[in-house]
Amino acid sequence: MLTWAFDGELTREPDELIVEEPLSIQLDGTLVSTTMRTPGDDFDLAAGFCHTEGLLDGFPVTGIRYCGTGPAVDTDFNVVTVETRGLAPTPTPRLGNTSSSCGLCGAESIAALVDRLDRFHEPQRFAPAVLASVPDQVAARQPLFDRTGSVHAAAIFDRSGKPLLVREDIGRHNAVDKIVGRLLLEQRLPAADLGLFVSGRASFEMVQKAWAAGFTALVAVSAPSSLAVETARAANMQLAGFARGAKLRLYSPTHLTPAPGVASEGSSGATER
Amino acid sequence: MLTWAFDGELTREPDELIVEEPLSIQLDGTLVSTTMRTPGDDFDLAAGFCHTEGLLDGFPVTGIRYCGTGPAVDTDFNVVTVETRGLAPTPTPRLGNTSSSCGLCGAESIAALVDRLDRFHEPQRFAPAVLASVPDQVAARQPLFDRTGSVHAAAIFDRSGKPLLVREDIGRHNAVDKIVGRLLLEQRLPAADLGLFVSGRASFEMVQKAWAAGFTALVAVSAPSSLAVETARAANMQLAGFARGAKLRLYSPTHLTPAPGVASEGSSGATER
Repeated sequence: MLTWAFDGELTREPDELIVEEPLSIQLDGTLVSTTMRTPGDDFDLAAGFCHTEGLLDGFPVTGIRYCGTGPAVDTDFNVVTVETRGLAPTPTPRLGNTSSSCGLCGAESIAALVDRLDRFHEPQRFAPAVLASVPDQVAARQPLFDRTGSVHAAAIFDRSGKPLLVREDIGRHNAVDKIVGRLLLEQRLPAADLGLFVSGRASFEMVQKAWAAGFTALVAVSAPSSLAVETARAANMQLAGFARGAKLRLYSPTHLTPAPGVASEGSSGATER
Repeated sequence: MLTWAFDGELTREPDELIVEEPLSIQLDGTLVSTTMRTPGDDFDLAAGFCHTEGLLDGFPVTGIRYCGTGPAVDTDFNVVTVETRGLAPTPTPRLGNTSSSCGLCGAESIAALVDRLDRFHEPQRFAPAVLASVPDQVAARQPLFDRTGSVHAAAIFDRSGKPLLVREDIGRHNAVDKIVGRLLLEQRLPAADLGLFVSGRASFEMVQKAWAAGFTALVAVSAPSSLAVETARAANMQLAGFARGAKLRLYSPTHLTPAPGVASEGSSGATER
């Protein structure tokens, strides 16, 4: 597309844009979400969303298909149905008359996850130097970012920090769901040996998704929120932020056990939260 | 909070985190959204959300209150009810059995906005140099970003590019809704004389919110999506992206009329889309 570049004066320049299109996700025929996403890996996205949001309730995905049953039309590809043969619980509408209760606070949001997900029990920790090596390695594998200059990425990395799978999307949560969905469909969940990388910030939602997939470490390029840190600590997950240029900041756990790359003096003063 | 900073070795350092807490928004007693937000300006946020999502249908807000009616407890402040004395249409649940139709495509998402909102008729254009001056001026007014190093911002600016109101939030959409809600409650909408600035990308949702509030220009620090550009053109809104260091890129409109700061040579080759 031709656009106008302004740098003191205007010049006509070509530009490539990130594609954004709505995708409706159905679970056993019930609409559970409409998300604005970058098309591609839609089955992974739909399966990953249902998994990370806890909608599958542990039941396996028995099929995934686009909406259309007759002759295909374009919009058929904007609806994906995830099937569990009706075993997953029927999703409840988000709207409706509210009860007398006055909503959730952050602590209750965490408590709901603690009910649903198991706290990691003595997970093997990634060394900080390994976590800090991930962002540059992922950056080298972002073709869409290279072309458009702005798109979110999520990646999984192994014990050495090497990225195994990278996904780019206009929505960070979609990029994560695409990765989790792929692992789910390949029956590789929970992903206890892998870490998750996300561009941008680490919000509560990112930690929730990482926890649901079993990642014991989450690395974000930017800052975590207060609630993200509290959730990672509840999960006993490693959480790093501001991961840029081989530096980072560790928010969880607060107690560090010696590992390669960990300065022993630094960890001697650590105390459990 | 104490965290671990890693730069070859680990050191214990204090850090301030962005607060993230859930807020449930009710319209005349019906739950319409639960958003993860940075607390503060919650009434503005709730009113702005209802307006930009088209839920008010033009009816005025007659009252806004926190949920609690008895002795206040903490979670009372995580629910805000917007009241129109029941004049706004009853929101429909997002979940439920889907019809046989196969979902929306991007063009239909735009068509739905065209049905609801008026295309701007010969709006006064901001000069590119004015739009390009906004980001640095907003950056000087982001105290939360200065303390935490990572939080989204939205701002409105006048014809000279001067920011009049800045809001920071962990969610970019929340920051926009807080600004729109403030203008709505001060009966200053539609905001045809003002422009809207957002940190990060310009997605379809950002253009939708700007259009609903009547901003004739939207400036984003990062890239717009394909759908955002198409929507801005449908609205006849000015859309600029990659606004950094007094540079930017203009995506809409495609036809430029001469204005202060516009090089006449650059605009002579302009053609309508």
